[in-house]
Amino acid sequence: MDNFSALPLVVLAEKFAALPGIGMKTAQRLAYSVMEMPEEQAVEFAEAILNAKHQIHDCPVCQNLTEQDICSICGNPKRDRSTICVVEGPKDVAAIERTHEYQGLYHVLHGLISPLDGIGADQLRIAQLLSRIQEGGVEELIMATNPSVEGEATAMYLSRLCKPLGVRVTRLAFGLPVGGVIEYTDEVTLNRALVNRSEM
Amino acid sequence: MDNFSALPLVVLAEKFAALPGIGMKTAQRLAYSVMEMPEEQAVEFAEAILNAKHQIHDCPVCQNLTEQDICSICGNPKRDRSTICVVEGPKDVAAIERTHEYQGLYHVLHGLISPLDGIGADQLRIAQLLSRIQEGGVEELIMATNPSVEGEATAMYLSRLCKPLGVRVTRLAFGLPVGGVIEYTDEVTLNRALVNRSEM
Repeated sequence: MDNFSALPLVVLAEKFAALPGIGMKTAQRLAYSVMEMPEEQAVEFAEAILNAKHQIHDCPVCQNLTEQDICSICGNPKRDRSTICVVEGPKDVAAIERTHEYQGLYHVLHGLISPLDGIGADQLRIAQLLSRIQEGGVEELIMATNPSVEGEATAMYLSRLCKPLGVRVTRLAFGLPVGGVIEYTDEVTLNRALVNRSEM
Repeated sequence: MDNFSALPLVVLAEKFAALPGIGMKTAQRLAYSVMEMPEEQAVEFAEAILNAKHQIHDCPVCQNLTEQDICSICGNPKRDRSTICVVEGPKDVAAIERTHEYQGLYHVLHGLISPLDGIGADQLRIAQLLSRIQEGGVEELIMATNPSVEGEATAMYLSRLCKPLGVRVTRLAFGLPVGGVIEYTDEVTLNRALVNRSEM
């Protein structure tokens, strides 16, 4: 923001610009919009940031974000405790829950193994996953990490680690997206769709 | 946001979604990104909102946003005090300052006359503009409101009000944008460009 603008406005715009996907132009527009808010609304916004930060912690069981002692999924007696879906982050839990089909539990790794970024297995919540398995009752781990190099490597690593503990380890299916067009599908996806073809 | 998510996260996402141009999907992404911030950074973000709101007020002269007693433009002895550029909002001041050409002062109306939205002349900072003119030394008012119905109506209204006070009232030029293509220019703009043609 230009240096003739009020300094606190410049500072606020910089904070917005630090958020993912927010460029400097949008950040300036958002900073101005805060100026146009009623005082009360701005205070509520600031409090919402602090509350989210202070009241939310990781669920001690699945490591997903929650403001309760144990998250609402782990605490729900109707969920199937024999299946754990292993995901990279809380956003993946939200995406899978939106299907309204999955009835098992989750385990949030909070990252993927990525040697290039200096992230090793010890920086993920793998120890917590192992102790959940060792407590017993877990029959299947569904690896629901992204189909990226890091996602595949992490799924493979966990599979080798957990299979000896006597659990079934499965991977999300890859193939044509529903509504997709074969003509425009990339060759890797199309190859997966061919390899994983099913009987009609 | 889905109701299984942590409540403070839902509240924060709603605050982001209340900002202009931020949809619910982006708001959720931003709320998650606040969760991923270091504690210190989140606190700074919340403080930036409160500081912008508490430390910034309208300059008593030009009504632009400032954290000083008098804004840096009104307080700059090098600016030409005989010319006042009248704009709708602080964003317009920022846009015109970016040209680095204009050396006069500004007057921020904080809106435009818009009977349909119930905004009359008495809700704008017109009285403050009149007293600046009555204090003397002002030779020209440049009407720099948008070329919209409200912008034109406000410029026209102020022109009629201020001309009798002995000041020259001018309007920003309208015509082809620099780099524009005649073929794709709308007919209203093209007509303005024809009517306001200049000698070569």
